[in-house]
Amino acid sequence: MDNERIKDLGEKELIFRLSKYMPNNQTNDDCASLSIANENLLINTDLMVEDTHFNNKTMHPKDLGWKSVTTNYSDLISSGCLKFIGINIGLIINPETKWHWIKELYKGACEALDYYGGIILGGDCSKGIKNAISITAIGLQGKLSLRRYSSKPEEIIITTGNHGLSKLGYLLKTNKTNEDLSKLSRELISQSLNTFQRPKPKRDFLQNIIKSRLSTDQVEIGCTDSSDGFYQAINDLATTSNCKAIIDYKKLPKYKNWPSGEVWDEYYFYGGEDYELIFSLPKDWAKRYLNLDKKSYEIGKFIKGLPSVEIINCPVNIKRNIYSHF
Amino acid sequence: MDNERIKDLGEKELIFRLSKYMPNNQTNDDCASLSIANENLLINTDLMVEDTHFNNKTMHPKDLGWKSVTTNYSDLISSGCLKFIGINIGLIINPETKWHWIKELYKGACEALDYYGGIILGGDCSKGIKNAISITAIGLQGKLSLRRYSSKPEEIIITTGNHGLSKLGYLLKTNKTNEDLSKLSRELISQSLNTFQRPKPKRDFLQNIIKSRLSTDQVEIGCTDSSDGFYQAINDLATTSNCKAIIDYKKLPKYKNWPSGEVWDEYYFYGGEDYELIFSLPKDWAKRYLNLDKKSYEIGKFIKGLPSVEIINCPVNIKRNIYSHF
Repeated sequence: MDNERIKDLGEKELIFRLSKYMPNNQTNDDCASLSIANENLLINTDLMVEDTHFNNKTMHPKDLGWKSVTTNYSDLISSGCLKFIGINIGLIINPETKWHWIKELYKGACEALDYYGGIILGGDCSKGIKNAISITAIGLQGKLSLRRYSSKPEEIIITTGNHGLSKLGYLLKTNKTNEDLSKLSRELISQSLNTFQRPKPKRDFLQNIIKSRLSTDQVEIGCTDSSDGFYQAINDLATTSNCKAIIDYKKLPKYKNWPSGEVWDEYYFYGGEDYELIFSLPKDWAKRYLNLDKKSYEIGKFIKGLPSVEIINCPVNIKRNIYSHF
Repeated sequence: MDNERIKDLGEKELIFRLSKYMPNNQTNDDCASLSIANENLLINTDLMVEDTHFNNKTMHPKDLGWKSVTTNYSDLISSGCLKFIGINIGLIINPETKWHWIKELYKGACEALDYYGGIILGGDCSKGIKNAISITAIGLQGKLSLRRYSSKPEEIIITTGNHGLSKLGYLLKTNKTNEDLSKLSRELISQSLNTFQRPKPKRDFLQNIIKSRLSTDQVEIGCTDSSDGFYQAINDLATTSNCKAIIDYKKLPKYKNWPSGEVWDEYYFYGGEDYELIFSLPKDWAKRYLNLDKKSYEIGKFIKGLPSVEIINCPVNIKRNIYSHF
């Protein structure tokens, strides 16, 4: 049954099968409905397009399902999402696609929903030449707003983890890396592939931020995720918050056995798709937060100045390649 | 400037230009945020894919923008939407596409938002081979729920308008009609093209339903839109509401000078994309409603029986072609 092509299955049967993944939509209504009691909603749309973000060589459909949800949830987390409500899925499918592919995609999506919370609320599917997934995720925001424009001079810049791994994973998957693989540790290879295929945005991040807060008067912090690259994330905070970031290269956390050299720094700064959080906190708050979350790292600070990023103690000349999907 | 290709423009500039259409998202944050006070939300996703739903011959981008919003809002209206909050747009774009195309698309979308309400909340864009638009629309539902499963035996079946026009418009646009065009009235041709390119779901429908209600105890009515075809809509109501629909062919409203014959009935019953509302009301309520809305028509009734559709007084044998996108 799994080997049936969608063109043989027909639209009605496809919609029927997909509706099984929607706990609240057994009635086959087009709209999803949702009761909300005095809340701030966060809404985010992310696209995953065949031959742009994935293909059958780089990504198993189950990983793609996981990644489609988690990359989207990463944006919600970086805006201060307290609770995930769910997702709508817009699915463009080549009619030759087998049901098995879609089933695995939905399995991966459901694994992510099981881990983070939320359900499939509804969606739409349509014929197309290349497969694509458009997910709109909805979450609830607490009293604390996390926004790109909320960083302030004298705040400590923090990251929740390493960078560069996803890019290395992508290069390994596509056999595009020029590196001698025997020089890379098995652990690094495995972790890189995992970061590329199964990104895992930090779900406890906001709780630690709230726990370490000194006063409920503090209602806003500057934050973004590093989906478009580590450098880009810091640059976005600096630009929208109108201050200058000083990043200390020596303080950057690197994965165990991450090699040194210009190309590795390029992956680190501009690789993209690592889905870590980059944010800033006042000094006292940062200290308490870093005591609570031992896997986060202080990497620099914001100062008054023209919106820009300065990297100090940097051994190599970092190229300013901003990540572009076009 | 309008002739620039997206690949020359670059992602950053494209996102910047698109953000100008989002009144609440001038800060370039990925997430849209929204305050909701004790409301029932309706959420709907619809896809428009190049070469499936449109191409540059059949559809001007401005019409496409209008249609992307209104076909989505049609689903919200048919679920009982009182107020439109807005939309998230997922845009897949071939890099050779000119900025002018996207600008016109957004203009058309904004025209629809001006007419119906709601704003562009946020979105995402990505490179792809074929252009596609995935819109997730959010609205507020009032105390009255409109659902496919809520029709009951002895209720009167009502439609808000004619069918078949959109299909004729599509065939005219693609030069696929076998009809002698000189036999068709100019008015019919013009109205068909307009229905295909600029569908206009009835925005006052719910107000008339509420005004004609006899008691606020009546909190649920059976309703769907005819996006997938007139016959399919009635069949969906019958199937999910578990009753039998009797449709009187003689009562079906037809556009002025709509020709008779088997092919015209096929367009009427199975053409799709007319975006009228098909719903059922108890007899008294139906009478009051039909007095209020002179452009709606009683076309039959539900009775107890196996879920099915029976068309009485029908001069031709209607083929059972259910519309499929695959």
